[in-house]
Amino acid sequence: MSTGKNSMEQPSKVAILGISGSGRKMSFNSALLEAANQLLEVADVSRLPLYNQDLEHEIPEEVKEFKKKIRGADAILFATPEHNYSVTAVLKNAIEWGNRPPRDASWSGKPAAIISASTSLRGGARAQLHLRQIMIDLNMYPINRPQLLVANAKDKFNEDLHLTDEETLQTLRDVLSSLVEWTRKLQR
Amino acid sequence: MSTGKNSMEQPSKVAILGISGSGRKMSFNSALLEAANQLLEVADVSRLPLYNQDLEHEIPEEVKEFKKKIRGADAILFATPEHNYSVTAVLKNAIEWGNRPPRDASWSGKPAAIISASTSLRGGARAQLHLRQIMIDLNMYPINRPQLLVANAKDKFNEDLHLTDEETLQTLRDVLSSLVEWTRKLQR
Amino acid sequence: MSTGKNSMEQPSKVAILGISGSGRKMSFNSALLEAANQLLEVADVSRLPLYNQDLEHEIPEEVKEFKKKIRGADAILFATPEHNYSVTAVLKNAIEWGNRPPRDASWSGKPAAIISASTSLRGGARAQLHLRQIMIDLNMYPINRPQLLVANAKDKFNEDLHLTDEETLQTLRDVLSSLVEWTRKLQR
Amino acid sequence: MSTGKNSMEQPSKVAILGISGSGRKMSFNSALLEAANQLLEVADVSRLPLYNQDLEHEIPEEVKEFKKKIRGADAILFATPEHNYSVTAVLKNAIEWGNRPPRDASWSGKPAAIISASTSLRGGARAQLHLRQIMIDLNMYPINRPQLLVANAKDKFNEDLHLTDEETLQTLRDVLSSLVEWTRKLQR
Repeated sequence: MSTGKNSMEQPSKVAILGISGSGRKMSFNSALLEAANQLLEVADVSRLPLYNQDLEHEIPEEVKEFKKKIRGADAILFATPEHNYSVTAVLKNAIEWGNRPPRDASWSGKPAAIISASTSLRGGARAQLHLRQIMIDLNMYPINRPQLLVANAKDKFNEDLHLTDEETLQTLRDVLSSLVEWTRKLQR
Repeated sequence: MSTGKNSMEQPSKVAILGISGSGRKMSFNSALLEAANQLLEVADVSRLPLYNQDLEHEIPEEVKEFKKKIRGADAILFATPEHNYSVTAVLKNAIEWGNRPPRDASWSGKPAAIISASTSLRGGARAQLHLRQIMIDLNMYPINRPQLLVANAKDKFNEDLHLTDEETLQTLRDVLSSLVEWTRKLQR
Repeated sequence: MSTGKNSMEQPSKVAILGISGSGRKMSFNSALLEAANQLLEVADVSRLPLYNQDLEHEIPEEVKEFKKKIRGADAILFATPEHNYSVTAVLKNAIEWGNRPPRDASWSGKPAAIISASTSLRGGARAQLHLRQIMIDLNMYPINRPQLLVANAKDKFNEDLHLTDEETLQTLRDVLSSLVEWTRKLQR
Repeated sequence: MSTGKNSMEQPSKVAILGISGSGRKMSFNSALLEAANQLLEVADVSRLPLYNQDLEHEIPEEVKEFKKKIRGADAILFATPEHNYSVTAVLKNAIEWGNRPPRDASWSGKPAAIISASTSLRGGARAQLHLRQIMIDLNMYPINRPQLLVANAKDKFNEDLHLTDEETLQTLRDVLSSLVEWTRKLQR
């Protein structure tokens, strides 16, 4: 369990990069990340240009910034809305840029977790499945448990989009703990 | 709606809208559509802005044009590359716009077919599965057969990206015939 | 092809075969079919032998009976539990037998609908997705809407497993109407 | 990489349990496991009774044996055929038994790898995707790479179903090394 050296010291902080698949201001998924923002950095991917391989000879500056953040992170936390049974174009676009030059495959080997919130009963279950399939190709390693699929999101956040539901907050904390533990295990 | 009038006449032409999920110039998927372009209109979706619900109060002009084309089509032919085991951001983005106001759900009830080309052995099988799941929510009706998954695409097109492989050309024609027949059946 | 003849007469009855993916006595999914049993025949597939290609030279009698029922049906209604994010072995086994000799591909071309019930919040959404993918290969045509995913099934049935929830009953009726209409369209 | 203590010693053997999803004698998938049989134990799951929750009060002896093997294994290697775009009933049945009492959730926490062979071009890609989704619920941790999808299996095995294709053999060895390394990482 212990790696010897670290057992006597404070464990080093795990740097988690949070990415929301929604670009709208009043997004429940962005608000989920906000609720965890003391524990992670959040990257805004809603304004990246639409990925096109022809742009690769001259990578836009904001893409370079984003890829740098990915490479600097120990783990990734995706907050994914569900649009039409899948991830959003906003999220898929960020994933494609992250997977391309310069320094391609920025995602490879990264531990990850997925959370989602939706106003429906299903809570984003199908989008999470698509994202997990995408992560096979990215060579990412998502945790299995706990799952966080916030259904009926309107009842869990207040008007300012602060997460007020205590049970959801606790599950969010558990997801983060599980991701940190998983990341340390894979880093050894 | 009625079959009475047409039964005595030449069947009316089925208007097929072709949509490529690739924005790059040298795309095998766009080239697949090109090979069928006498039989369909092709919409370029690679330059649509990235979908954001906050933009819905003021829909960009090119989005309105695109949605008009969808509504005018009897059937849709998707040519989908596979990026990271899924459809591209370019294609998902077009789908999301098509599914939103004004006049939302432009896709609903439309017959469809999916084709794909890739330089790999798998030919886009996983992207086709994701697209089919997305179409459940869009309420679209894809044909099952024949399937067209062009593997090792480099051997099937010439340097100018003309589809030169006779077997692939024949399957493409069969896909189009099957889509036309399916569309007529659903229109009755 | 023509609708002329039937338009003056009572439309012929559509024969629907109901198949439950559960073998247990107290199954919510079997109970869902039971609630519709005036409108369909139900086939019990929980006692078929485990499929093995080596058995194909001497097909078991109960398999022959089952395949006869499939061929005699105009449409199929699957009631699928969700085990481990997928369909049950019981259901997959029935599907494999149906797809093999004698007279293979008994499923091909059949219209279909999927319903599911579960004690969880998700209601079988993931199992339905797997079943839809399986149906691509079977060349079956499922309806898209309405969807019936009964969540929290314990609140919708009484102790004798009679479906008592009025809203669920209405959706079940709507699924059957939609399936009948879809079947007639595909038969023309 | 080294944990200190083990670096001076022979690393302990990782016990891998191989499970084939095919029950037929001339199965390419069983033959794939056979090619690795010095490195793993193989469990035959083709004769387990069809899973039914009503049987749980009196678990069949062969099921108890199988569950004991799962619990004794450090890692699982699944060799999965593809039937109708999914895993076989034989494999799904074994998975369901493994996930149920006595001592349920025998799979939980286990590292795993998936390999597949098929006579088609696709090599089982879709079945592997379904199995990975199933493993989310089982709380298993599959490796991402290398992938082994043996397409055109007839060209890779001889008449006695010995794996003769050198490239495939090497990939199989790489899968096993990757699985062993992954298992040691997760055990720490």
